[in-house]
Amino acid sequence: MSINRRIILRAHPGGTPVPSDFQRIEQPVPEPGPGEMRVRNLYFSMEPAIRGWLDGKDNYFQAIPLGGVIRGPTLGVVEISNLEGFRPGDHVWGLNLWEDYSILSAETILLEKLAVDPAVPLSHYVGALGPSGLTAYVGLHDVGQVKAGDTVVISAAAGAVGSVAGQIARLRGARVVGLAGSAEKVALLKDRLGFDAAIDYRAVPDLGAAIADACPDGIDIYFDNVGGRTLDAMLPHMRDFGRVVCCGMIGDYNNQSNPTPVHNLWQVVAKQLTLRGFLLFSHMETLPQAREDLRRWAAEGRLVALENVTRGIDRAPESFCRLMAGQTVGKTVLEVDWA
Amino acid sequence: MSINRRIILRAHPGGTPVPSDFQRIEQPVPEPGPGEMRVRNLYFSMEPAIRGWLDGKDNYFQAIPLGGVIRGPTLGVVEISNLEGFRPGDHVWGLNLWEDYSILSAETILLEKLAVDPAVPLSHYVGALGPSGLTAYVGLHDVGQVKAGDTVVISAAAGAVGSVAGQIARLRGARVVGLAGSAEKVALLKDRLGFDAAIDYRAVPDLGAAIADACPDGIDIYFDNVGGRTLDAMLPHMRDFGRVVCCGMIGDYNNQSNPTPVHNLWQVVAKQLTLRGFLLFSHMETLPQAREDLRRWAAEGRLVALENVTRGIDRAPESFCRLMAGQTVGKTVLEVDWA
Repeated sequence: MSINRRIILRAHPGGTPVPSDFQRIEQPVPEPGPGEMRVRNLYFSMEPAIRGWLDGKDNYFQAIPLGGVIRGPTLGVVEISNLEGFRPGDHVWGLNLWEDYSILSAETILLEKLAVDPAVPLSHYVGALGPSGLTAYVGLHDVGQVKAGDTVVISAAAGAVGSVAGQIARLRGARVVGLAGSAEKVALLKDRLGFDAAIDYRAVPDLGAAIADACPDGIDIYFDNVGGRTLDAMLPHMRDFGRVVCCGMIGDYNNQSNPTPVHNLWQVVAKQLTLRGFLLFSHMETLPQAREDLRRWAAEGRLVALENVTRGIDRAPESFCRLMAGQTVGKTVLEVDWA
Repeated sequence: MSINRRIILRAHPGGTPVPSDFQRIEQPVPEPGPGEMRVRNLYFSMEPAIRGWLDGKDNYFQAIPLGGVIRGPTLGVVEISNLEGFRPGDHVWGLNLWEDYSILSAETILLEKLAVDPAVPLSHYVGALGPSGLTAYVGLHDVGQVKAGDTVVISAAAGAVGSVAGQIARLRGARVVGLAGSAEKVALLKDRLGFDAAIDYRAVPDLGAAIADACPDGIDIYFDNVGGRTLDAMLPHMRDFGRVVCCGMIGDYNNQSNPTPVHNLWQVVAKQLTLRGFLLFSHMETLPQAREDLRRWAAEGRLVALENVTRGIDRAPESFCRLMAGQTVGKTVLEVDWA
């Protein structure tokens, strides 16, 4: 292939993004300079954080301008390398672009050579054995300090991080209650992932009452992937000294200029709660153990790597929009369509 | 005196309490039974937490019913003791009632025999050398992990806890910015308590902009005594890994059924913040060191014990209402009028 297909931002999304906010363009395949390498991208990791870069305002990273190529983590294979330590055939992870071919260097954010187990599907390294799984692990251990007997509630529990977090919590001996947005997801959590209970938050008239039923002794850890109204509903049901693991606030990602208000923060004082936000790259010291535990659990069949894979770079926008509309299950992955 | 003057709840306050919500009654002086002691109350500690008990809804403790005597911490002196370990003349602290004479037992919450230094005004043990000062100490150290060079912002900085917290932070080598609600309080913070900067939050058009000016490098520790809008305004100005010491949310105490919403909680994830609530009695292990440091600083003249003392049990409601209206400076203390 002599062209490089790329997905650019055509319009700032008005709220939840739609595929027409994006456009596919074709450009020449780039050549790596000194200290660079060319990577053929195999998978794009669809992540809510990308949504924050689409509004033209800086958010963790620079905003993506109109006409700019969409930025996102990818898993690829090295084709040509002028970068010490990397050779053709190496599998690499990095914060790249939605395109067939990317130029990487030592400056590439999140750059990492992956030690992939050939017995494990490569796509799992985008999800349960990749940053989503590692985020779940770090959040539960370093931030939530999970222990046997804890009651753990997880929002977006059928999502990329939540589905792993719930399974880890169970492996650590906790009682796990998942929140998800459909009857199908609830069934999946209970039947396939072994959650002790699950609540369809869209179907219950009063989420707080449903949580009180599911957690009669209160919540020790709330692993929060959504923020907003759901966080608000959990706070009154936390136990004294409970921990809220603030992993993401996807509920607000589609509308950052008007985030959902939280009313029940006074519970933080009354119950001596800890709310703590974290980002994976601040917990590097935990990652070796996390990788090993996740790999072992997956190999032993004790960790289900939930993923939804869409094939075809042209369908990247569609895949991302489904994620942001809350319609996906497990890790959302785009598989680049190489012949 | 053969009567026991007591202050009871006459009406549930509608928002900020007014003196007519209270009433003085007279009853016989109580006699202690076995295992009890009679204490002559010298000082009432006026505390925002009391407000939470006046609405007829349980809040940490049982609600005070209409006609019930107001509950609050007092400092008193033992008159008659049938309780082992306490003798007439001992100074004691406890969660008692607004009345001349209280009956205490081993069951009395917060009961403590005070080792008072005769060189220190007794009223200081209600404030800077008592629970208010200890709360400031525990919040800054155990929760905020203050260290030299930190930028520390304190709300209600002219209040009982805030005025001590700011002084401790400075003694620990931090740069301290106080928020208070009048020009007089701002002057007091800077001139008398040595704050590096202070902001009259009622006078500035945009509190966030004022904070950005005062803290150009961001906030390491926000010692939050008020919650609500002020907390919301601080969150965008926190530094990465900043700590919010959630000490109180007095902004909502007058209206607990409709707490002020907080919109900027997504900053907790983006900046990896920790918000942590605490109550003094969960940090008993820190108290000996805290007492010693506070006593030494006060003796050396390095800690100003700000207090406003009102004399006369009949004026207890008035004193409390001024506290809840934000009109007081330092610790609000009621001195019982013994002849």
